[in-house]
Order: sequence, then structure tokens, then C-alpha cells
Amino acid sequence: MNFGSDNVVGASPRILEALARANAGAAAGYGNDTIAARVTEHLKAIFERDLSVFLVTTGTAANALSLAALTPPWGSVLCHVEAHVNQDECGAPEFFSGGAKLVGLPGLCGKMTPAAVADYIAEASHAPPPHAVKPAALSLTQATEVGTVYTPAEIAELSEIAHRHGLGVHMDGARFANALVRLGVSPAEITWKAGVDILSFGGTKNGCLAVEAIIVFDPARADHLAERRKRAGHLLSKGRFLSAQLDAYLADDHWLDLARHANAMADRLAEGLVARGIRLGLPVQGNEIFAILPAGLHAALKETGFVYYEWPTASLPPEAAPRTGEVVVRLVTSFATTEAEVDQLLGEVARRS
Amino acid sequence: MNFGSDNVVGASPRILEALARANAGAAAGYGNDTIAARVTEHLKAIFERDLSVFLVTTGTAANALSLAALTPPWGSVLCHVEAHVNQDECGAPEFFSGGAKLVGLPGLCGKMTPAAVADYIAEASHAPPPHAVKPAALSLTQATEVGTVYTPAEIAELSEIAHRHGLGVHMDGARFANALVRLGVSPAEITWKAGVDILSFGGTKNGCLAVEAIIVFDPARADHLAERRKRAGHLLSKGRFLSAQLDAYLADDHWLDLARHANAMADRLAEGLVARGIRLGLPVQGNEIFAILPAGLHAALKETGFVYYEWPTASLPPEAAPRTGEVVVRLVTSFATTEAEVDQLLGEVARRS
Amino acid sequence: MNFGSDNVVGASPRILEALARANAGAAAGYGNDTIAARVTEHLKAIFERDLSVFLVTTGTAANALSLAALTPPWGSVLCHVEAHVNQDECGAPEFFSGGAKLVGLPGLCGKMTPAAVADYIAEASHAPPPHAVKPAALSLTQATEVGTVYTPAEIAELSEIAHRHGLGVHMDGARFANALVRLGVSPAEITWKAGVDILSFGGTKNGCLAVEAIIVFDPARADHLAERRKRAGHLLSKGRFLSAQLDAYLADDHWLDLARHANAMADRLAEGLVARGIRLGLPVQGNEIFAILPAGLHAALKETGFVYYEWPTASLPPEAAPRTGEVVVRLVTSFATTEAEVDQLLGEVARRS
Amino acid sequence: MNFGSDNVVGASPRILEALARANAGAAAGYGNDTIAARVTEHLKAIFERDLSVFLVTTGTAANALSLAALTPPWGSVLCHVEAHVNQDECGAPEFFSGGAKLVGLPGLCGKMTPAAVADYIAEASHAPPPHAVKPAALSLTQATEVGTVYTPAEIAELSEIAHRHGLGVHMDGARFANALVRLGVSPAEITWKAGVDILSFGGTKNGCLAVEAIIVFDPARADHLAERRKRAGHLLSKGRFLSAQLDAYLADDHWLDLARHANAMADRLAEGLVARGIRLGLPVQGNEIFAILPAGLHAALKETGFVYYEWPTASLPPEAAPRTGEVVVRLVTSFATTEAEVDQLLGEVARRS
Repeated sequence: MNFGSDNVVGASPRILEALARANAGAAAGYGNDTIAARVTEHLKAIFERDLSVFLVTTGTAANALSLAALTPPWGSVLCHVEAHVNQDECGAPEFFSGGAKLVGLPGLCGKMTPAAVADYIAEASHAPPPHAVKPAALSLTQATEVGTVYTPAEIAELSEIAHRHGLGVHMDGARFANALVRLGVSPAEITWKAGVDILSFGGTKNGCLAVEAIIVFDPARADHLAERRKRAGHLLSKGRFLSAQLDAYLADDHWLDLARHANAMADRLAEGLVARGIRLGLPVQGNEIFAILPAGLHAALKETGFVYYEWPTASLPPEAAPRTGEVVVRLVTSFATTEAEVDQLLGEVARRS
Repeated sequence: MNFGSDNVVGASPRILEALARANAGAAAGYGNDTIAARVTEHLKAIFERDLSVFLVTTGTAANALSLAALTPPWGSVLCHVEAHVNQDECGAPEFFSGGAKLVGLPGLCGKMTPAAVADYIAEASHAPPPHAVKPAALSLTQATEVGTVYTPAEIAELSEIAHRHGLGVHMDGARFANALVRLGVSPAEITWKAGVDILSFGGTKNGCLAVEAIIVFDPARADHLAERRKRAGHLLSKGRFLSAQLDAYLADDHWLDLARHANAMADRLAEGLVARGIRLGLPVQGNEIFAILPAGLHAALKETGFVYYEWPTASLPPEAAPRTGEVVVRLVTSFATTEAEVDQLLGEVARRS
Repeated sequence: MNFGSDNVVGASPRILEALARANAGAAAGYGNDTIAARVTEHLKAIFERDLSVFLVTTGTAANALSLAALTPPWGSVLCHVEAHVNQDECGAPEFFSGGAKLVGLPGLCGKMTPAAVADYIAEASHAPPPHAVKPAALSLTQATEVGTVYTPAEIAELSEIAHRHGLGVHMDGARFANALVRLGVSPAEITWKAGVDILSFGGTKNGCLAVEAIIVFDPARADHLAERRKRAGHLLSKGRFLSAQLDAYLADDHWLDLARHANAMADRLAEGLVARGIRLGLPVQGNEIFAILPAGLHAALKETGFVYYEWPTASLPPEAAPRTGEVVVRLVTSFATTEAEVDQLLGEVARRS
Repeated sequence: MNFGSDNVVGASPRILEALARANAGAAAGYGNDTIAARVTEHLKAIFERDLSVFLVTTGTAANALSLAALTPPWGSVLCHVEAHVNQDECGAPEFFSGGAKLVGLPGLCGKMTPAAVADYIAEASHAPPPHAVKPAALSLTQATEVGTVYTPAEIAELSEIAHRHGLGVHMDGARFANALVRLGVSPAEITWKAGVDILSFGGTKNGCLAVEAIIVFDPARADHLAERRKRAGHLLSKGRFLSAQLDAYLADDHWLDLARHANAMADRLAEGLVARGIRLGLPVQGNEIFAILPAGLHAALKETGFVYYEWPTASLPPEAAPRTGEVVVRLVTSFATTEAEVDQLLGEVARRS
């Protein structure tokens, strides 16, 4: 039973089948295949506007390329201190941008507050150029690193502050679909309509093998992303194998179905834990559950073979903080998680509590 | 009929099937899956020695990471002037290395000569540090950009010069298999036994979807390649989809069979062209044919729908240079090229000549 | 009356005279002049050990080169959040290091605490490589950005934590002399004997025109600093004009005399302010005074023509925080500040209070 | 007797005196001093147009910053293969630009030909983006590395080709004054009127201590040079010491007088050598002489204590190539070279021939 991450599972069968279908015959290389063109058109329809698309294989590449397009080397990127771009990409944004500075802002529930962003920008404005780096981009994670979700209004407020001070807005959407179906809004409403300039549109965690789309809503921001991608070794020669994944992912709302299932499994698991007396550290808004487990229960579950991680985080509200003898753990569900798996974990919890 | 590149075709069915097989169940992410371990063991057996392996999705990534491991930012990389790393990667080696300098050396048939390498190093040795960059790496392409092949003795001689002066040796093996089966030697004989320190072991052009292995023969050279790969966004979370490709590629000598077929198709095409009075610009040693076509025939073939490229190159021996009214074209065969396709092209040539 | 910075004044006359003396005749370029050799010997005597020296013209260059020698691109540099390297160098450490991450730690009085450093390293150790960057260097500022001074014991404790976890230790000594004469210890005691690996030894703020010495106590850390300096455009061809400055600076303890004077002027000013009822926000340990001024007095002083800056800082102990109607200002004295200038300011304060 | 380089001598006394004069009193730091403003106005008058000025201490910094302003990381810089930027700056242009590619073009007499530039650009245009880097800048050296000079017409022709294909034009003017007085034209005529976008205006080799001015004729090209300079550690805090040098350098045409003297000494030396039967390898158009010496004479001169370097160069016209038993040497005169020094060398040559 593996609740360790949404990347320990494979790909959705429909997506694998699409890959096989795409295999036949000759196709133009380097992203110039006909499936790629269809994917772009589909994304335009989904997001209800013109846009540019650049496919890559990892979220790290999508994020780092996006941020490099938004900040000069002498700029800074504001993000939540626990953001993937700040903590888990081995400095990829710094590498791709030529040495920009990431500024990790605190915030409960994995979310930056308008006050924290505005205060930081105000403080930075006191350092006259060229002595300090200049805030150049704001990066939001949707859903956040701790599985919470920014509302359209929250995104709009943060973007408005950013734009007012000349910052571009990036959204790390590695779990975009999970956030979207939870909010029940349109893709446009939590992206460009709320001020997002570039979106890392995730596929891998939600059922693809390895594909993310950099979606640039403002075409002026797309300048040179083709060169940046190639130069970073992220332009696949047999590009059809990326586009085919996204093609199947988007077809018939498959991506939304996959996310709905992962979220439903998260809800089932969260509700089951609460029913068995386990406290949650954070609201479950995507496909991640942060639970506070008694250390004994935790040890027993690990021993039984359940896979998941201890996950200390400063994002917990004070009232949710673990007490002595408790640990914070992260449980992640995916498109492939089954009710049986969830129930097996819940059963074990019941037995051990 | 597409003879434009070996990346216009899809993947070998066996490799696609392996991908589907690898899909089931949970697997450790980020390259820690069991298939990856098996691939490493297989490569050790094939190369008859201990080695380190880092999988990535593109040849550009494999080359740029390899070169970054061999040169400091204040070093230079000697390569053939027409090498892929010098001409076709949008500066990826410069990006990954932090600004090293690529030095393109001339040489007929796409190959650097020992004299050219030795002369350049000797000349560079006159510039005392720290004023000039220091030659730090030699990068050979096997098979070369123009489809020729270095013999074990040629590689050993170049490597010996490089090592004597402190340079590491990299081999860009995007078409490694094609060179290997042509030479009829063991993988070890044209790599570490001949002085190669790091090999970009190609899979994509020879029937995979998108996978290349950076193979480091000297473990000391592998330091920090894990960090470099992650930082460049090239560590796939669902790593099984890379390892599964290589697993099937290596199994039952499938990779050798694929390359033998591509080469055989190249031979058939080359011999057929010669039989029809077409001159070859270069010996056909891999799966690429550089032919000298009368401009009229070239125009007719393009019009008929055959896809391939004009390919001006300084690698042609003087006696092979095109005359007025002739063009140099590159024709590439692949694992998927059929005899029927070759014969169709030859038939068209016969009809038009 | 300019108390704005220690760089608004010119150079000590003795140093200018040395420059003129050094002008005659031919001298080897690029740092190979005989004066440079003498400076190195002098520094060895002063620091009581073997060491390597690299002269540059700015503190930013000295710091950024030093840090680049201590961290790989995938490393992080721990420093006080208000450190010059973090706030005032437009990302120079990021640029020189190839994209390392600076981590600004909080701390009262401009000083990092052992607990803050140890906690950060412990937290970072939970992120397994290669996903996160690895703490690679600790950078202390002596005297700090707010004019306070680390004791030998404090430096030793911080260095010990750093070394235990594999981090190198850098000291930004732009105001090294001011700290040294305040502490009344030997240069060795607050540098290599306390664990410092590389020191930016400041000259400019303390009476030179433009010279800083990168002093590397551990020769192994000096690898490639010559190449890094050249590549950054910081190797002066007429190097004698750098070495001559330092030569005069060090001769006859001139550097210590200059710093003693600046500190004495700071003391005179601080004591005078306190005597006139002005609170100090921080202890005066170098040549910087952080005073809490009533807004009215501040306005009057500025209007009268006194030059200095408002300087909000999180380094103030809570009890020293400004109340409504107060501002925090920074006053800096230098080797050239006169008693008359100090008394003029104090007189104005008395008149306006 | 030192004819090794124009940087083995000190500074012109007038410039040293100006430094001393500039020392008194407080001055705004970081280039905001009043002398800097005066220098900018003076340069506008000299160049007869509006322009932006950025002072730095080395030619390497001036060149690397200028080129970084003209090329993106995925661009290339065309220059003569023996250009200082290509051979003698340890990869500084690559470092400052974030990994751009320098392309060394051949050419006799140290000069690129229009044909070589046009051919390279034409060839590069065949590689469609984003696979290859794009030619982004042309860098001319005036006077060249081998002491020759581009005429206004030659500069204009090269610039026209560059601009027609979207390349910016940089001039490395480390010896700009020597070229200028030789040509007898106005500064405008060999810079912006001939198409130069950015000029590294040299001071150090021609009598300053250490100062070069980056002069940007097209203000749009100056974007972010302030940030780039700071980030590279090249913004001096006591900026008056840079501006004071240039102020005295420009005053009363001092810079032209210094260059005229250096050139006159070069002429005297060259004519004297020819009169004594020594062949020149290249025309003497600046302050550098490339002479072909019998090996025996060379050995005798070195033994007598004359300092200069053997300087093999591919820039020699075929008819000037050294024969067996001859060596090519470079002799450099400067503002400080005396007739007596020249005559002493000539006397020695006469005695030894």
C-alpha cells in the first residue's frame, strides 16, 4: 500500500494506449508533430484564449523554464518558503535563470498571504538599484505543497499586488487538476483571469508518464522559451511521445476524471481517519492528507508495510501542531488509488488505535 | 518516404510493450526503481566493468551533462567543428558547464585528427593561466555527424593525446550502436579500453522513445552528476518509464539488431545509388548516406515526396566535392526503414536519371 | 557633515603617496609585481601562518569570489538575513557561484546564533540529495552590517558547527580592522584559529582607494581562484596599484591606526548622543552607530545638512525598537572623521533636543 | 628596457595628480560623484552625441559586460580568432553572458574580412532556431591584437553586414587612442558613425592606472548594465578614483598626446629596425611592432636584458612568415617609452647584426 507520492504509480492506461497509437509512421520531430498542434488547440479551448505551449518531461523543468522567462538574473522570485521551486529542485530556478534569488515567504497552510507579499515588496523597494536584486516574479503553487488550494479571489489579490509592482506571476500547477476540480471553477478563472502569466500545467502526477506543459498566456513572455528549452536539453526529438500523452490526458475530460478520483480517495481517507479519532493538520483540498498520528500507530503502520512519509511542516496552524508523542505524516492518493487500499489503511488504523 | 532523420520514426514495438509492462503497480520514483538497477547491471555486463549510469531523455542533455562533468567553466572542450555539441544544441554544453568554451576543430569525414588535437593543445599551452581557458575535455562523436566511424585505434590515439595533457574524454554515442555493429568489436573496445571516460549511450535514434544513458567509466568523474541532472530538470519522477525503455533495448541484443537493420538499409541504399551512377560523398559506415545528387534529380525526388535534407558539409574529401549543378544530400535510415522504402527511392532514382 | 557611509571619504594620504611612489619604472603586470609579493609576506606575518592572497577592487568581488570557492552551484550559503552578500550585492554570490542559494538566517544584533545555524543545517539534512541544495558555506560578517562584533568564541562556535557538517567558513571583513581593534585580539584569533577558511580582508572602507584582499587560509580552497578572478575581469594589469595600497595600509600598523580612529570617533559620537538623551538601538562595537531619533530631531538634522540614512533593521533587540514618532538611523564614522565634525553634530542635537 | 607590454609602465603623472586632487572631502559613492558627471559630459562632446557611460577597472570587464549586453546566452559573438575576448580573458565573455559562444574568424593582419563575417552568418542562417545559437554580436578590436587598425570604411562595411542580420556591434578599444591618432579621424567616425553600438574605451594601457569606460551609443543597449556591473563586483564604492583618472585623461587632449607619443616611439623603433635590416611581419599602425628576428639576435637581446615576447600569430601575411632560424616577436611601446630606450634597443640590434 503506497501512499508515499503521486509519482509512485504508473500511467493511466488510456494514456499508455495513446502512446502506442502515436507510434505508427513518420512524424515531424522536435515538437512539430500534428498531435502537438492538436494539443495546443485543445488547451486554447480549455483556457478560452490564445496561448503558447512548450512541452517538457518534468515539473522541475517546467517551473525553472517558466521562472527564467519571468526574471532576469538580477531579479528575485517570491514564493512560499516550502514551495517545490524553493526546496525540492536542487536550485533549478537559480540555474535556469542565471542566478536569480528565490525568496521564501512564510505562510500558514502552504499559502502566501497578500500582506507577506506586499510587505516584502515594500521593503525591497527601499534598496535602490543596482545594489539589491529586484522582485521580478511571484510563484504560486496550486494545489500547494501541503495540498491546500488558493481560491480565485486569493490568486487575483496576490497577482494584483505582483503586477502593480512589475512582477510576473507564475503558477506551479504540478497538481493543477486536483485544485481545479476541488474548486469547481473553470481553468481560466484560476489562471489568466486571476492574473497568472505562465502556468506549469502538470500531467505526470495525475496519470501521465512524464509530461508537463508550460502554458504562456501572455505571448510576449514566451520570447526565447524555445531556445531556453532546447539549450536545457528539454526539446525531445520524438516529440510525439510527449504530445500523445497530453492529447489523451485532455481528451474527454480524462484529466478531470483522474483528478476527481484522486481527490475522492483523499476525502475517503481523511474522513475515515477523522472518524477513527485521528486529527488532520490541514484541510484536505487536493489529494494530500496531513495527519497527526500517535507515534505508536505510525510505527505500527510502517511496520505493516504502508508507505508514506513523515513530513514536518511550518504550514500547520498552531492549534494543529503535533504534541509530544505525535508525528505529522503526509499521505498522498492518486488516480490509481483504490477504495480497497484506502479501506485497508483505515482498517489497520482502527485495529491499532 | 522519410529519410530525413532517425528521429522521424516512432519506437520499436518491443520497447513500447516493455513500457506497458512496466506500468503496473507502485515503483520507487526518481530512478530508484528495480528496472533501473537491472539496466545498470546489464550495462556493466555489456561494457565488462564497473560504471555509473544516469538516464535522461535527450542526447543534448546527456552530452551537456557529460561535458559539464569534465570541464570547469574556465575550460575548453575540443570537438569536431561539425559536432552536434558544437552546432546543434543551442549552446547546451556552455549552459550546463557554466560557460566553458567549445573549440571546433576541422577534419575530413567528420573526424578529428590526432595532429589537429595535438596542435591545438600545444598552441593553447603557450597561453599561461589564468589568461586563457585550459583545454579540459575532448568530445568524439561515434558514429560522427556525417555517419563515419572512428576505429578503436583512432579513438585510442586521440584519447592518449587527451589524457597525456589532462583532458577527459567524452564520446557522443547518439548513434553508438550503429558504429559498434559496423566495427564488429565489443562495446568496451571503443570506449573505456580506448580511453573514453564518459559515454552518451544513445537509445532514442535507435528505436527507443526518448532515453539516453550517461555512462561514466571512471567513478570519480560521476561526482555530482546526480545533482547536475536534478538541477537541470532531467530527473524523472516516474523513472521506470526511462529504465523500461533501456531494459527492453538491451534485452536479447535488441539494440544491436535494430542498429544492424538500420545499417543494412543504409548499405542497400548506398549500393543501389552507386549502381545507378550516383556518387557518394563519404563512406557509409553507419546509417547515414551523404550522396551527391544532380540538382534535377534532387528536385524531382523532393517533388515526388521523398523527405531528406540538403546537407552542405566541410567534411567531404576534396575529390568528393559537388560540382556545379550538384547538391550534397543526407539520407538517413533507421531501425524501421523497410527494403520496400529503399527500393522505392532507388526506383525513382533509376526512373529520373 | 557626512555620516552616510565610510566610503564617502577619499583615501588616507599615506596610501595615496604610496601609489605615487609605486608609479615609477616598469613592473610585472597581473599581480606579479614585487610589491604584491611583499604584501603577501606581510599578511603571512600578520596572520601568523601560510596563506594565499588574491587582490581585487571591491568587497562585492572579494565576497563573491570567496563564496564561489566554497560552494558548488548546487550548494547553499548560510548568512545573516541582513548580510551584505544577501542584500546589497545584486546577486553577485549567485552569479559567481553559478547559481548557489543564499539562505538568510535571522538573528539579533546582526549576528547569527549557533542555534539558528544548527537548526537550519539539521532541517536541511532531512532533504535527501539530490532534491535539495546542500549547505556548503557559512558567511559571517565582521564587523556585522549593523556594526556589532563577533567574539572569538562566537566565531569558533559557529565555525565548529559549520565544519562538523562539511560547510566552509567565509568571513566578510569589509570592516575587519574595526572589529579587530575593538576586540583587542590578534588577526589570527578571529580568523583561522576560530575556523575561518577564507577572509575578505577589507581595505577600501578603512582608508584605501579600492582594494580588498581575498585571504585563503586553507590552500586547498584557493584552487582556481586565479581563474575565477581573471574570468570575472578582476585581475588588474597594472597590479602594482592594488598592491601599493595594501602595502602602505599594512605598513607601521597604519590600518590599525585608521580603524582605531574611526572607532574612537564612533564612541565619541555615541557617548555624546547618549549624554544628550538619545537612545542607541545597538551596542557600538565598530564604526557604526544605530540611534533612535525623534522624528523631529531627525528632520531638523537633515535640513541642517547632515548626511546619514534611515536604516530600518530587524536586528534591534525588542527593547530598543523605535516607538511611534521615532526613526532608526545609521551614522558611520571613518578614518577621516574629525572630532570637530562629531561635535558639530552633537551640538546640533543638543540645540534641537 | 621593457617592451613587453603597455601595462608594465605606471600611470601618467597628470593622472596620478588628478587622483590626489580628487581625494579631498566627501563625495557621493558608487559612480554618483560630480567628476563622473563631468566625464560623461566630456565624452558626449568628444563623441558628438548622447551616450551612456559605465566605468570599470579592466578591459576584460569592459568587454565582457559590453558583450553580455549585446548577446543572449543562446547567441554567438563573432570576433577575430586572435581577439583578446576570445583568447586572453579566460572565458569572461562566456561567464558574463551566461554561456554565449565566441566564434573566432580567421583574417590576416588581425582583421576580420567582410567576406568571412558574411559567410559565417550565411552559414549559420541555415540552422533553424532553436537548434543552433544565433549570431548576436560582432566584436572588432581597434587597434587589433597585432597592432593594425581598421579604417572607418572597413568598420562601416563590417557593421553594415552585422546590423543587416540583427547583430549588435562592439568595439574593443583597449588601444582605441592609438588607432584614433593614427587614422587622424574623429572618435565619432570610427565608432557610432561607422555602426559601433558599444565601445570599450580604454584608459589603462594608455596612461591611466586602471580605468576603462563602457560607452553605449544606443541607450536601449544600456539596459541593465548598471545591474550587470554591480553584480559582477565592478561598481566601485569610492567611484571618484575611477572618474578622476578619466577626467585627467580626457582633459586638454592628454589621451591623444599620450597615444601620439606611444605611436611615435613605435614608428621610431620600426623604422630603426628596418634600417638595420630587420623585416616587419605586419604594418605598424598603433604602438605594437611585430618583427621577424634572427634567432641569434633574439637570444642576444634577451640575454642583454631587453624584455619582450615571442608572439607566434596566424595574422602574418604569407610573404612575411618567419623562415627557419627566425622568430616572430612583439615589441610594445607606451606613453612612457623614451627615445633613449628605443635607441638603446636599436643600438643593440646594430651591434649584434
